Amino acid sequence: MGTQSIWKSSGRLADGREIVYFDEAPGLGRAEIKDTRPLPPRSPGPPLPAGAPDWGIRWDPLAGEWVVIAAARQDRTFLPPPDQCPLDPSAPGRPTEIPADSYDVVVFENRFPSLAEPLGRCEVVCFTSAHDSSFTQLTPRRVRTVLEAWVDRTQALSALPETRQVYCFENRGEEIGVTLHHPHGQIYAFPFVAPRLAQMVAQARDYASAHPGGNLFDDLVTAELRTGTRLVTRNEHWIAFVPEAARWPYEVRIFPAARVPDLTALGGAARDAFGPLYLDVLRRFDALFGRPAPYIAAWHQAPAGFDEARRQFAAHLQVLSVRRAAGKLKYLAGTESGMGVWINDIVPEEAAQRLREA
Amino acid sequence: MGTQSIWKSSGRLADGREIVYFDEAPGLGRAEIKDTRPLPPRSPGPPLPAGAPDWGIRWDPLAGEWVVIAAARQDRTFLPPPDQCPLDPSAPGRPTEIPADSYDVVVFENRFPSLAEPLGRCEVVCFTSAHDSSFTQLTPRRVRTVLEAWVDRTQALSALPETRQVYCFENRGEEIGVTLHHPHGQIYAFPFVAPRLAQMVAQARDYASAHPGGNLFDDLVTAELRTGTRLVTRNEHWIAFVPEAARWPYEVRIFPAARVPDLTALGGAARDAFGPLYLDVLRRFDALFGRPAPYIAAWHQAPAGFDEARRQFAAHLQVLSVRRAAGKLKYLAGTESGMGVWINDIVPEEAAQRLREA
Repeated sequence: MGTQSIWKSSGRLADGREIVYFDEAPGLGRAEIKDTRPLPPRSPGPPLPAGAPDWGIRWDPLAGEWVVIAAARQDRTFLPPPDQCPLDPSAPGRPTEIPADSYDVVVFENRFPSLAEPLGRCEVVCFTSAHDSSFTQLTPRRVRTVLEAWVDRTQALSALPETRQVYCFENRGEEIGVTLHHPHGQIYAFPFVAPRLAQMVAQARDYASAHPGGNLFDDLVTAELRTGTRLVTRNEHWIAFVPEAARWPYEVRIFPAARVPDLTALGGAARDAFGPLYLDVLRRFDALFGRPAPYIAAWHQAPAGFDEARRQFAAHLQVLSVRRAAGKLKYLAGTESGMGVWINDIVPEEAAQRLREA
Repeated sequence: MGTQSIWKSSGRLADGREIVYFDEAPGLGRAEIKDTRPLPPRSPGPPLPAGAPDWGIRWDPLAGEWVVIAAARQDRTFLPPPDQCPLDPSAPGRPTEIPADSYDVVVFENRFPSLAEPLGRCEVVCFTSAHDSSFTQLTPRRVRTVLEAWVDRTQALSALPETRQVYCFENRGEEIGVTLHHPHGQIYAFPFVAPRLAQMVAQARDYASAHPGGNLFDDLVTAELRTGTRLVTRNEHWIAFVPEAARWPYEVRIFPAARVPDLTALGGAARDAFGPLYLDVLRRFDALFGRPAPYIAAWHQAPAGFDEARRQFAAHLQVLSVRRAAGKLKYLAGTESGMGVWINDIVPEEAAQRLREA
């Protein structure tokens, strides 16, 4: 797929978790390196007895939504000192989550998952072995490798019987609660369709009914291109714009020019063109206030296996930052957390202009 | 109207905003005191020309939800020093938002509103003139007066032609972005039904279809009383419990024992019994970690005027705290902000037990 080669190999960590290397050169044998740590076996297994459930999914009958209860995570690694980062490659005398002494991109099952068998899966994606780097500093070639890892995991996790949605995302910045500074993202396999995705699927379906032959996403992107005031940047294969009804001070949606339901359906040329555009967008976010922006990057992909939804859906990336001014963050308070009503202090057209000029 | 008297009077601030006093004694003449500040006239008015819209509501076609754009608020008062608090009563040489030199409970239109005519209204409710107090420190008598103010404003704002929902809430704590420490809450008149309310209305309607004669809220409260493991406290007229699928580390829903669609329909005995119970709940939140809890308190009330929804709806109060451990907050990151999937690190039954023992 595309013009650049990636070599994939997989193994198991000491407690049985899967680890998958995505190498930019052949024959490195990283997956064969044994994890020598004396890890206790994983104990997620089936849901615990009803008396003491400390993880699982629960139905909220007032909202009609699933909520994940994941008490075991309270003990997860919290802002470790740089020389104890579990996402660094292993070094003599310092075994980490990654047995190899170097890597390009690596994915492994989270040791402190919110969801595990048989309810789903949580994976960690390390973007680079360089602890002090960031996604913004990756080369386009490396972004291409990360994209290939997302594609691979979307395919692999969609095939699990419980999966209804594969969600690739990155949380960046202590401002939004990030507990590990090493550049990494996460991939969740949800056993349900997440509320935000369910909304989009319903909106796309209703739109198709009301506009025979039309598609909600296609028409939205076309309208943004025509209006122009909210465009941030684009290339032949991707378009980045601030949504007209942006919820966040700085929010961008990045759509491929040719609609695909999920990342696995992206053509090679679009894959190649993604890195340069996405790096451009992220660097604009960092430039806004002269320092690394706290952001969430969220891949919206069609639900796994829902054929009708897949026909209408347009995979895209949403990047949002909670920083609204140099010294101010957007907090979610009574209107957002209590009522689901977002109040945005930044006019979307102004946000787009600032991002264009950044 | 219960067993305690409240005297209401209203006037106008210098820029035309309405101010309403709720006094616990008669004949105080507070509303007659003139606001002498040279305030510029308000300029919300009708939506601005299409070229430069800096406030209004916008439709998010991907979510099917309204988003509020309120750029003017970027300049709102931000953590003023204690001697410049705009919510204190006025003093000689120091005029504030409240012209009177003392007050019990006072409500006025927000000077920096997210919503104004003809799209809605934002009001501020001051719970006490004592700057360094808090809701938790109010007397039950004062809570009764606050409740009466909420009832009055629900009635008054529901009568505005644009109002679809009246939302009374309190944000408490810098941790959730509170910019004024003076004990106060807010009341919004929305020109739409908020997403969280719309969900509940839909769930209640579907439940009634599936369970003829049953009511979602009644059956939920009955089930919580029977289960018992998530109850926090109760009295003859109110029941407080942690929801089975709580989204927040510490979250309590407080229902009146007799279902009412909104606060205006609460009987006198229930109004009298609210303060003691609510104060008990809030003090338990503060006791959890030995310091004032950052919390959001959100009144869910039936949509204004939707008769069918009103028949099924149960007004109730949701109190949620973002503190999950002594030194840790719950952040909304990729799963919550990107996908609407809440992950809760605290098992609801344990949260209830900790609140019972607090």
